[in-house]
Amino acid sequence: MHPVQFTAESSSNGVVERDFTVGDVPGVLRSPASGATDRAPLILMGHGGGNHKKSPAMAGRAQRLATGCGFHVAVIDAPGHGDRPRTAHDEQEIAELRKAQAAGEPEGPIVVRYNAHLAELAVPEWRATLDALQELPEIGAGGPVGYVGIGLGTAIGVPLVAIEPRITAAVFVSTWPDVLVEKAEQITVPIEFDLQWDDERIPREAGLALFDAFASKEKTLHANAGKHLELPRFEADSAVQFFARHLGRTVTSPA
Amino acid sequence: MHPVQFTAESSSNGVVERDFTVGDVPGVLRSPASGATDRAPLILMGHGGGNHKKSPAMAGRAQRLATGCGFHVAVIDAPGHGDRPRTAHDEQEIAELRKAQAAGEPEGPIVVRYNAHLAELAVPEWRATLDALQELPEIGAGGPVGYVGIGLGTAIGVPLVAIEPRITAAVFVSTWPDVLVEKAEQITVPIEFDLQWDDERIPREAGLALFDAFASKEKTLHANAGKHLELPRFEADSAVQFFARHLGRTVTSPA
Repeated sequence: MHPVQFTAESSSNGVVERDFTVGDVPGVLRSPASGATDRAPLILMGHGGGNHKKSPAMAGRAQRLATGCGFHVAVIDAPGHGDRPRTAHDEQEIAELRKAQAAGEPEGPIVVRYNAHLAELAVPEWRATLDALQELPEIGAGGPVGYVGIGLGTAIGVPLVAIEPRITAAVFVSTWPDVLVEKAEQITVPIEFDLQWDDERIPREAGLALFDAFASKEKTLHANAGKHLELPRFEADSAVQFFARHLGRTVTSPA
Repeated sequence: MHPVQFTAESSSNGVVERDFTVGDVPGVLRSPASGATDRAPLILMGHGGGNHKKSPAMAGRAQRLATGCGFHVAVIDAPGHGDRPRTAHDEQEIAELRKAQAAGEPEGPIVVRYNAHLAELAVPEWRATLDALQELPEIGAGGPVGYVGIGLGTAIGVPLVAIEPRITAAVFVSTWPDVLVEKAEQITVPIEFDLQWDDERIPREAGLALFDAFASKEKTLHANAGKHLELPRFEADSAVQFFARHLGRTVTSPA
């Protein structure tokens, strides 16, 4: 097993940010500055396609989770993303995607197949990262673990949560749902599922069908008016409330 | 115009509860005990069918809104409900409803038509109540006003919010949507709309169609796993967050 190797540390806005690697996989662990070494639940976050572990969406959500609830929050770069090398296959898929977008052709089939490929690689990376993070005293084995995914992070997170019993609650922001239904049917932990009601890329019915597929006794759909990229910021606050409820914390800094 | 006449006052769990009448309509105004006479936004709440202004659902939600955000919260008895007399027409409709339920026949057509009848009576009552409440110094004219409806309270609230410009944000818990679509299309204020994904009484598609109909730029659907009467309690907390955001308050007591 690869341990967590910390490579850099900085601090801003009440959050300590520690870059790390687990084997070849680079990540960042964000913790409340007021209690960076305190034992607290861990949230794993998966970034969107074409994005990376330090994107504004990841930094903003981690800040809310760390300062609002005292959580530790880990993000790793997906294969071919952020600080990780692209393979010839990555380059080829991205070129096909750009070509389809430029021609106004459907991007769905390419995104679905490429995300499924990345998820196959990423699921074992996440499990190894979780093994390593749980060796840290401030996280520990047996503590509560949540997952947040956006887009590609949901395409990776659904199969991950389906087979990873250490993750006990998850927030998924919608992605192309096509290949995920079968995995969603295996998920029984509490779910908050965000989709955009006026999504111009992903058909509404497909998103509703994915929500319907989760076997969770507690699951909540948050459907907001707006297009694909217009997810309201208050959903990040709602996710903090959701994890506070399920991972046993109190929101100390009201959202 | 009928003024607010206070008829009783009590206090418990940090909430001052003042019974009132406006003309023939009995209501209750709940306020934070720490600031019962402080100027604060007003939330109007409409109770469910067969229920009344002091039902546990109304008291629980009012308690969260008053202590969590400092809001004043008013509930009035719907026509034929609570402390109000039933007409021969009320008795007849209720008898038909019980008969249909006992026979296992569809209750929808009776509920829809009876609720529409009650809404016609209740909308002007709410407007007169709001006129009177705004004469109180702790509420005042021109201050922010929100509306929460559950079931019948939604059947009344949708046509009310459609024509009442003083209400600037609303939470609706699902009801039989059939006759409300046309009114919903006239609503443009921010909406949070709760429906039960496994509702055994109201068809899912009809609920989704009503959400779709609201013309609001900001609208959020919260669909929760569970049957008609299983709305999770955390949705009451979510409503507090929603009104804090839209009526300009901070949640001081974390939900």
